[in-house]
Amino acid sequence: MDSTTTEPAEQSLATVLAEIHADLLNERSGEVANYIPELARVDPDSFGIGVVAVDGRSLAVGDAELPFTIQSASKPFVYGMAVEEHSRDGVLAKIGVQPVEEAFNAIALDEATNRPFNPMINAGAIAATDLLGGDTAEDRLARLLAVFERGCGHPVEVDEQVFASERATGERDRALAHLMRSFGMISDRLEETLELYFRQCSIKVTCRDLAVLGATLANQGVNPITRQRMLSASTVRDVLSVMHACGMYNFSGEWDLRIGIPAKSGVGGGIVGAIPGLGGIATFSPRLDASLR
Amino acid sequence: MDSTTTEPAEQSLATVLAEIHADLLNERSGEVANYIPELARVDPDSFGIGVVAVDGRSLAVGDAELPFTIQSASKPFVYGMAVEEHSRDGVLAKIGVQPVEEAFNAIALDEATNRPFNPMINAGAIAATDLLGGDTAEDRLARLLAVFERGCGHPVEVDEQVFASERATGERDRALAHLMRSFGMISDRLEETLELYFRQCSIKVTCRDLAVLGATLANQGVNPITRQRMLSASTVRDVLSVMHACGMYNFSGEWDLRIGIPAKSGVGGGIVGAIPGLGGIATFSPRLDASLR
Amino acid sequence: MDSTTTEPAEQSLATVLAEIHADLLNERSGEVANYIPELARVDPDSFGIGVVAVDGRSLAVGDAELPFTIQSASKPFVYGMAVEEHSRDGVLAKIGVQPVEEAFNAIALDEATNRPFNPMINAGAIAATDLLGGDTAEDRLARLLAVFERGCGHPVEVDEQVFASERATGERDRALAHLMRSFGMISDRLEETLELYFRQCSIKVTCRDLAVLGATLANQGVNPITRQRMLSASTVRDVLSVMHACGMYNFSGEWDLRIGIPAKSGVGGGIVGAIPGLGGIATFSPRLDASLR
Amino acid sequence: MDSTTTEPAEQSLATVLAEIHADLLNERSGEVANYIPELARVDPDSFGIGVVAVDGRSLAVGDAELPFTIQSASKPFVYGMAVEEHSRDGVLAKIGVQPVEEAFNAIALDEATNRPFNPMINAGAIAATDLLGGDTAEDRLARLLAVFERGCGHPVEVDEQVFASERATGERDRALAHLMRSFGMISDRLEETLELYFRQCSIKVTCRDLAVLGATLANQGVNPITRQRMLSASTVRDVLSVMHACGMYNFSGEWDLRIGIPAKSGVGGGIVGAIPGLGGIATFSPRLDASLR
Repeated sequence: MDSTTTEPAEQSLATVLAEIHADLLNERSGEVANYIPELARVDPDSFGIGVVAVDGRSLAVGDAELPFTIQSASKPFVYGMAVEEHSRDGVLAKIGVQPVEEAFNAIALDEATNRPFNPMINAGAIAATDLLGGDTAEDRLARLLAVFERGCGHPVEVDEQVFASERATGERDRALAHLMRSFGMISDRLEETLELYFRQCSIKVTCRDLAVLGATLANQGVNPITRQRMLSASTVRDVLSVMHACGMYNFSGEWDLRIGIPAKSGVGGGIVGAIPGLGGIATFSPRLDASLR
Repeated sequence: MDSTTTEPAEQSLATVLAEIHADLLNERSGEVANYIPELARVDPDSFGIGVVAVDGRSLAVGDAELPFTIQSASKPFVYGMAVEEHSRDGVLAKIGVQPVEEAFNAIALDEATNRPFNPMINAGAIAATDLLGGDTAEDRLARLLAVFERGCGHPVEVDEQVFASERATGERDRALAHLMRSFGMISDRLEETLELYFRQCSIKVTCRDLAVLGATLANQGVNPITRQRMLSASTVRDVLSVMHACGMYNFSGEWDLRIGIPAKSGVGGGIVGAIPGLGGIATFSPRLDASLR
Repeated sequence: MDSTTTEPAEQSLATVLAEIHADLLNERSGEVANYIPELARVDPDSFGIGVVAVDGRSLAVGDAELPFTIQSASKPFVYGMAVEEHSRDGVLAKIGVQPVEEAFNAIALDEATNRPFNPMINAGAIAATDLLGGDTAEDRLARLLAVFERGCGHPVEVDEQVFASERATGERDRALAHLMRSFGMISDRLEETLELYFRQCSIKVTCRDLAVLGATLANQGVNPITRQRMLSASTVRDVLSVMHACGMYNFSGEWDLRIGIPAKSGVGGGIVGAIPGLGGIATFSPRLDASLR
Repeated sequence: MDSTTTEPAEQSLATVLAEIHADLLNERSGEVANYIPELARVDPDSFGIGVVAVDGRSLAVGDAELPFTIQSASKPFVYGMAVEEHSRDGVLAKIGVQPVEEAFNAIALDEATNRPFNPMINAGAIAATDLLGGDTAEDRLARLLAVFERGCGHPVEVDEQVFASERATGERDRALAHLMRSFGMISDRLEETLELYFRQCSIKVTCRDLAVLGATLANQGVNPITRQRMLSASTVRDVLSVMHACGMYNFSGEWDLRIGIPAKSGVGGGIVGAIPGLGGIATFSPRLDASLR
């Protein structure tokens, strides 16, 4: 038996993935997010699927190596970083974990606690980014990129054009940040945090990267290919809980009913999913349903 | 020591349960729901825990045989009945599955679809009850009670005094029903459905019953003691999904983070939980947190 | 030219009215309310204007004698009846006077007080009708019709077909009533009150009637033609205040800015306005702007 | 008859004012706004009343010469400036005129138009300030101060300490500005506009000044003492309309019912009112009702 030979079960998964990819390739519903010109420049018909098992084996089909910006698919990982730095309860004091029926960019905080409802919507994600420590903006960014590097298995970088666009047009996120600041829910490093958040959203990944990131969550925080730890196992438990409950915004409930895999979408077209103990799965398709853009 | 002795692991679970019960027995926070006098008549310090494994073994500690009304802990099962009768998509056309940040009795429907947000809040639960077929009110009640009888393993009955009180004071639920009716989301058997809903909420159960009901969900719909099927396996999958996402109202997200067991509370003091493949767990304590009353 | 000739100023007003009528006659924007079939049966192009001065002189142009149902244009007068029976503060305990940005049929009460926001939106109007006393439904209706008879200067009657339709389709109003009942803001004569409210909305009037009703408000409560008192002068002051602030629903602010006359619209197509000390003005046109239907 | 003798009617008004002042002097309900330390430094028991007739005669009682910051009582006048510069419809395209049931600092825009609901709440007031033209921040401030100088009859200045505090703590207003900016409802001079707004709120006035400003509105825009025009007559009509409808926030409806004078409150303790054709009236009392702070 040749050691490079794939197992029968894996071959069949490759076949299944290829079939799914072929079936969906001509699906043209959904629209590319266009609130910043850079996002609209993508080929709307790009489509890739990646799967990475907790034992490190991986499969990909279609546009799995095409780079795009991670956008909101970064949120679970940054939430995890906040939990590692401040503990579950420390973060819960600032960010709830309750899914909501409102859109991802809702201008609303929990009236009883002034917290953003959860870390998967923009308000809570900005609050999570705000919790990332570091003496300077550069330190904070370096720490954040280092964690994504461990998760992806290679250095990651920010798409500076997308970042510049996000920063220039991010007035609604800025409104959310000032609203949270008015309640003391985020620090006075508000502009720095917003820049860091926009940079975090502008990290370039591929569909394969997202699948590895998903597999890292499925593998209790350890990148199954590099064997590097990205997040602690207990943190990953919390991350998966909020992905499960809130990852697909106000479609999360129906996603759980129909799909059942904890997942997080990004407006760039990526979705990262994690099946605990089995592996990660990711898709890339810039055509988005209304609830995700 | 004879051959009927329980296994060491089980003994230790009994010990653990007894310790938990003893630890919490003096916990006096929370308040008894008092919106109807009958609910307020319960001993606030009653406290029971029940556990039933999918192999049928069971344990109980404290006030596990004390009857109380099931209230909202009935909702997952009636949702399951609606799914069995109308299919997942048939029910989804009338009732969403999105958790919300609002209270259980929120007067709000999804603006895009006019659906109640999910079947665990009152609006959605009334809509689920409305979907239960039957030529007459008696037929519908008989069918509903028969399902609970299969789930509990014995005939169940309605507490007529609590029912009368619920009906007399249920103006907010009545408002919800008329609001849904104004959008055509429920049938014109509105008063009949409300009566059926109030009766469903007034079914008398014990903590042990709730544990068996939870174990039935954990056992893919088959009561592990009587081996009678209550709901189909595919229906149970949907029921567990909505319990997971929405069962503890706007505390569901934090419940999932901290506890992680799909569960449903009732204002009568019962909570039913199900750990798929393992068993059911139930607690009875009339002192309720603010988010549950 | 004889002594019965109208005065020059009045002639010129007649000319102005005729010109305005001619100018607007071909205006085809807006839509007829069609939530009940009876309302949709009207000729959408009917158009009348009526003016009645506080000295009793009157003018009319176009379809000023065509009967239609008064609908929400009844609300100011019933609010006045409630104020006369329970005093300003007695009514304020149950119904606010704050204009809102929401639609006329909003399912919302003031969270601090559980009151409907004002008596011109449906919730507050139902609460006002609820305050009308009487031993029986018949008594209450008779009293209500008597007041409108004094205001119009002739007996008025209910359009029974429209009433039946309103009652059959009034689920949203019924939801509002039960919601208010759940807070104890209306009496337990809920169905009776709703019937009375639907009858009040179904009173048949003409554009000329509405102008007389407006003139009665402009004349401190005394019908300027019959010299009969409809409402006390102090009550009229309150009625005009809420018409001014809330009479045109969430267009009230812009109406005041552009038109400046306290007025109340009805979904049947009538608008009643009052210029204190000068006279009443009414229009009838079933084509409604979006904010009024 | 000595020409300096006051008229009998005026003497009696002086007596009445003195009596009212004496009656209310010991009223201790309400609380001083304390969201910025500078506001909390005022003597809570200060109390003044000023009246200025359209013929220029004036009366004052109590602390009518004590300086305080004008705060939101500046809003009607700045709205007037915006109307003069951009016309009624030009301003209506950016700022509605609909009173709301929400608080003055509500984070909400009209969903249909993205406009702030009215220019008396913070969002709309910031949008009005944004409309003030000028090449530089200094120009805009100079123009604004010049208009208030004409209205007060003497140069006015900004309380720099209060301004610095407002700017430092104005995160909620900043959130509103960014939210409006995200919809393109305000210009990209956002920070400059916010500074101008905070300065406008920090203009020092006395109760007597506010009475003169009210009398200027009552006098169709001409300061009745200096005879200088502050705003055009047609602008004043619009200003009075929005004061009438929205000036006392979500108490505006009840204010109109009970008081009936178009008025605007400021969190510094001043209230300016205008009785068209008669005169202005102002009060100063830092103890505020809940709806005004």
